[in-house]
Amino acid sequence: MKINGQHYRTIWLAQDGWRVVVIDQTRLPFRFETVALGSAEQAADAIRSMVVRGAPLIGATAAYGVALAMRTDASDAALEAALALLGATRPTAVNLHWALARMRGVLASLPATARAEAAYAEAAAICEEDVALCRAIGEHGLPLIAEIAARKPVGEPVNILTHCNAGWLATVDWGTALAPIYLAHDAGIPIHVWVDETRPRNQGAALTAYELGSHGVPHTVIVDNAGGHLMQHGQVDLVIVGTDRTTAACDVANKIGTYLKALAAHDNGVPFYVALPSPTIDWSISDGLADIPIEERAAREVTHLSGLADDGEVRSVRIVAPGSGAANPAFDVTPARLVTRLITERGVCAASVEGLAQLFPDLASRGTA
Amino acid sequence: MKINGQHYRTIWLAQDGWRVVVIDQTRLPFRFETVALGSAEQAADAIRSMVVRGAPLIGATAAYGVALAMRTDASDAALEAALALLGATRPTAVNLHWALARMRGVLASLPATARAEAAYAEAAAICEEDVALCRAIGEHGLPLIAEIAARKPVGEPVNILTHCNAGWLATVDWGTALAPIYLAHDAGIPIHVWVDETRPRNQGAALTAYELGSHGVPHTVIVDNAGGHLMQHGQVDLVIVGTDRTTAACDVANKIGTYLKALAAHDNGVPFYVALPSPTIDWSISDGLADIPIEERAAREVTHLSGLADDGEVRSVRIVAPGSGAANPAFDVTPARLVTRLITERGVCAASVEGLAQLFPDLASRGTA
Repeated sequence: MKINGQHYRTIWLAQDGWRVVVIDQTRLPFRFETVALGSAEQAADAIRSMVVRGAPLIGATAAYGVALAMRTDASDAALEAALALLGATRPTAVNLHWALARMRGVLASLPATARAEAAYAEAAAICEEDVALCRAIGEHGLPLIAEIAARKPVGEPVNILTHCNAGWLATVDWGTALAPIYLAHDAGIPIHVWVDETRPRNQGAALTAYELGSHGVPHTVIVDNAGGHLMQHGQVDLVIVGTDRTTAACDVANKIGTYLKALAAHDNGVPFYVALPSPTIDWSISDGLADIPIEERAAREVTHLSGLADDGEVRSVRIVAPGSGAANPAFDVTPARLVTRLITERGVCAASVEGLAQLFPDLASRGTA
Repeated sequence: MKINGQHYRTIWLAQDGWRVVVIDQTRLPFRFETVALGSAEQAADAIRSMVVRGAPLIGATAAYGVALAMRTDASDAALEAALALLGATRPTAVNLHWALARMRGVLASLPATARAEAAYAEAAAICEEDVALCRAIGEHGLPLIAEIAARKPVGEPVNILTHCNAGWLATVDWGTALAPIYLAHDAGIPIHVWVDETRPRNQGAALTAYELGSHGVPHTVIVDNAGGHLMQHGQVDLVIVGTDRTTAACDVANKIGTYLKALAAHDNGVPFYVALPSPTIDWSISDGLADIPIEERAAREVTHLSGLADDGEVRSVRIVAPGSGAANPAFDVTPARLVTRLITERGVCAASVEGLAQLFPDLASRGTA
């Protein structure tokens, strides 16, 4: 995707051929800065501090983190240490663990001397596959938007609501929830996106608005409280969100607040789609509420907030009454019963064991074995 | 209620005996400042700019605004001009119009020479009645909390979620939704309040947290996105919110996002109570979605946010990506089917025409006549 007319992905190799460069997403949308990661520790820090975020990009960064570790010390002990370090950064995102398991699978049987090169190659492959997955999600999601557009008066936009950032900044390119939107926009279908601010970290107001704006997609930011009201008044045609982990029974963990929008969509007959590459499916669990650990992040993310001050500086301000504390669960689980369809790289399916089994007979049978 | 050990109401007469003093709620929780209003125009400005907010306090301020106008010019034309000016400040709150109609009822038949004194007396009566109403709401709501406390292990707090500010800062004293909470706390029942931040104006994080903290009630601020997750995990025993307008069929207009919490409460079997003084009931309408006008406020309330910077100054920062716009509906409507009970000054009733008729036979029959 493009920023100021220049094509970017979210992660790439530095000119030195070994360091890994990422966009510092904690600085967006007010500063576009990149960070070069030179060690597994730096990669872990980038994931933990949300310099990179979004389930697919976290997986790609973790894979490159392993490669950086192997470059310094490719022993079995160092491999396990890097996997453990990177695996402990974020508890909810399942394809972090998928990416690390894949790296271990490739590297464990290799002699130490071959590991660094193989690790870079595998991390690069993970990135290329993610781009292909997201592009395929876009192609499968596009008809869902086109169908609604076809029922509307000519020129009237399809109104899509999304929560958090599941665009190209959350993946290597294209995004998950936003991939169908970019393809629809590029195909000339009139689109308007309601962008949930997504407190506390404002990934919607900061990142989704930024990337939609950079690409020229019409959009309006709303507070997280507003979506239900818009749905009650017919101003939302469909909802598309991403996910950090989906169970085999299609319960969906996504950014805190997603569940509330799913309830409102269900109450108003608005289709609620979840876009996901299959590595975000956790085939080993069924009950999302019981089995998905929910990350509790720092209270300061709630009590304080950063933005651009009148003097052009990015400043942090306290917004909660002095002396009052805060709780900060980062995700919630939307039960499968509230999900209209899943949009995957292999097609669109019902949010059910049977739906997934039709698209992923190979993976579904493995998971239940 | 108390601030730093001193008793305050939210509106009172200045020492000069005619100006009307209010707490500037746009400065809370970081600055405690009062503003003296000397004209109907200043009262209207205070309402419009949300120096005062909360349906009951808006009504009281409007009533005093009429008194201020009568002091300068007590002609019929001046009375009608003041009523029109004050009535146009906020479209959603119904007891703004209730208070103004009451002032007209008292003043219109009086000779001009008697109007100013009568207006001050009537505005004071509205304030005293509001305090009594809120106190009564507290007494009727208290048993709902005490019942849950009785079923819990000794010492385990009752977890109550509230949205926006419906505490004493929203009324003349006590509050609506928070009145039962204050009474329960004062009675020694262990209480913990989940305070929704309430974007975009953060009345929860700024005002509810401030007043609960000042009174010593344990509480935790959460983002508006988090309540559904907490309910899914049994961490909310009941929800109590206020309302700006309730229809005769008990659809409830309240701060944007209330509807989403009502959906989540319904989905998780959590009681959802609405606390209201009867002047917030609009007996003339039944269908809240169709008939209650929803105020659209400035986009800047969404794109920018004020807080306390590290240098001790209250600063405004932009939090939305530059170039992206915002929409800002201020209220939404929760359908009666999602409301467990109404808590009024006359008791607790079902959220239905029949429920209201049992408590308010006098008012309900007038409304349907």
